[in-house]
Amino acid sequence: MAAAQAAQITFYTAKVCPFAQRVELAFAEAGAQINKYLIDLQAKPDWYAPKVNPASKVPAVAYGGPVVPADQPSSESTKIVESLVLLEFVADLYPNAQLLPSSPLDRSRARYFIDVVSNKAVPGFFSMVMKAEGPDALFRGLEEIQSLLPPEGGFAVGEKWSIADAAITPFLGRTDLLLRNDIGKYPVGEGPKVHAEIFQGARFARLQKYFADVTARESWQKTFFPDHIVEKMSKILARPAPKV
Amino acid sequence: MAAAQAAQITFYTAKVCPFAQRVELAFAEAGAQINKYLIDLQAKPDWYAPKVNPASKVPAVAYGGPVVPADQPSSESTKIVESLVLLEFVADLYPNAQLLPSSPLDRSRARYFIDVVSNKAVPGFFSMVMKAEGPDALFRGLEEIQSLLPPEGGFAVGEKWSIADAAITPFLGRTDLLLRNDIGKYPVGEGPKVHAEIFQGARFARLQKYFADVTARESWQKTFFPDHIVEKMSKILARPAPKV
Repeated sequence: MAAAQAAQITFYTAKVCPFAQRVELAFAEAGAQINKYLIDLQAKPDWYAPKVNPASKVPAVAYGGPVVPADQPSSESTKIVESLVLLEFVADLYPNAQLLPSSPLDRSRARYFIDVVSNKAVPGFFSMVMKAEGPDALFRGLEEIQSLLPPEGGFAVGEKWSIADAAITPFLGRTDLLLRNDIGKYPVGEGPKVHAEIFQGARFARLQKYFADVTARESWQKTFFPDHIVEKMSKILARPAPKV
Repeated sequence: MAAAQAAQITFYTAKVCPFAQRVELAFAEAGAQINKYLIDLQAKPDWYAPKVNPASKVPAVAYGGPVVPADQPSSESTKIVESLVLLEFVADLYPNAQLLPSSPLDRSRARYFIDVVSNKAVPGFFSMVMKAEGPDALFRGLEEIQSLLPPEGGFAVGEKWSIADAAITPFLGRTDLLLRNDIGKYPVGEGPKVHAEIFQGARFARLQKYFADVTARESWQKTFFPDHIVEKMSKILARPAPKV
């Protein structure tokens, strides 16, 4: 548990969004006291873009300033956006929680891991689930992630959970959940096949162990909402009705 | 000047590469003692990919291990790649050089600036110079960068130079140099026109002042090689001979 913070933190998030879950995981691991506000991404409130994030996306944080209702953000708070910027911010804000290792070399390993997540694993997820381009990019991205995991066990960059784990796990969780339930833009029946390859086969054995370890944590249980994600993504990714 | 470092640092770079110059700027600002080795990107040595960076790109750092000739890298050194990972690494390695601000909020501003560089300014540069897609994305990227600069003067996130400046300036330098010399995939004569808009017009007045400030620094003078860049890029970006 980190020391008590001086400034108020309002966290704008959405249960469905993997980028937002990254930051919520980091807050949970830090034991941060935050004022959490859910944004309905299909019906964003009018004040959100002008007063919090002009890009109209989650996650966003309003930091400092007076304590105000989340739906009446103060112009005196600092607004911070972009999930990876926010992960570093949470790590900086709660140094006692050690969300990043302390040595420069280990910190660079965590950031390289996050770079591979951004440039390989996340595009692979979108390629498979949202664009119906097949599983190859996803397999390659996850293989590269797996190759970076310590072979002997543990988290992304060692025995201690870090923001590198926050960067990847929301995407692993949604890969598991959506493929298992055959939710996605790919052909009907393709999801469970690709799911079996990733979550049961020998090819991804180390990744499976890792996934079990990160999802067993309290921070995961508190920030992952499978029923909600299934309901929302089933609508967003609904396939056209088959021709009769 | 930072305290003397404990481990050897071999830095693999190329004068032409803006990503590599980012890291060289940070080393220069930190007053780091490094063993610099130039990689010819058109004729990479055989040992480079297997022993330093499997992706076969610069920049790369071999950190620690025994002191060995740069062209005989030791398996005992840690290899670090990706320019933004390396910028954070240099900032962590030389805390006395203060290449990042100390407060979590100011650090998040630096990282958000870098995020805009990566997702707006750099794609805008490539869009204009390498892909002949016109100047609009470049203008938009630079306008967003300009909007983040402190209006009263100074560097990306305040009075002190930071790795946020390292992230953008190699691209500003090449935008200036290449457009001024009409080097690029765009139509003949287009370079100087776009150059005038960016480097002389009122629209980018704050950016022009910023560019003058960053390029006046010793770190810039020591790491920017305009004659070499013009020579190399003239070949790489040569347009087909006009039809007679």
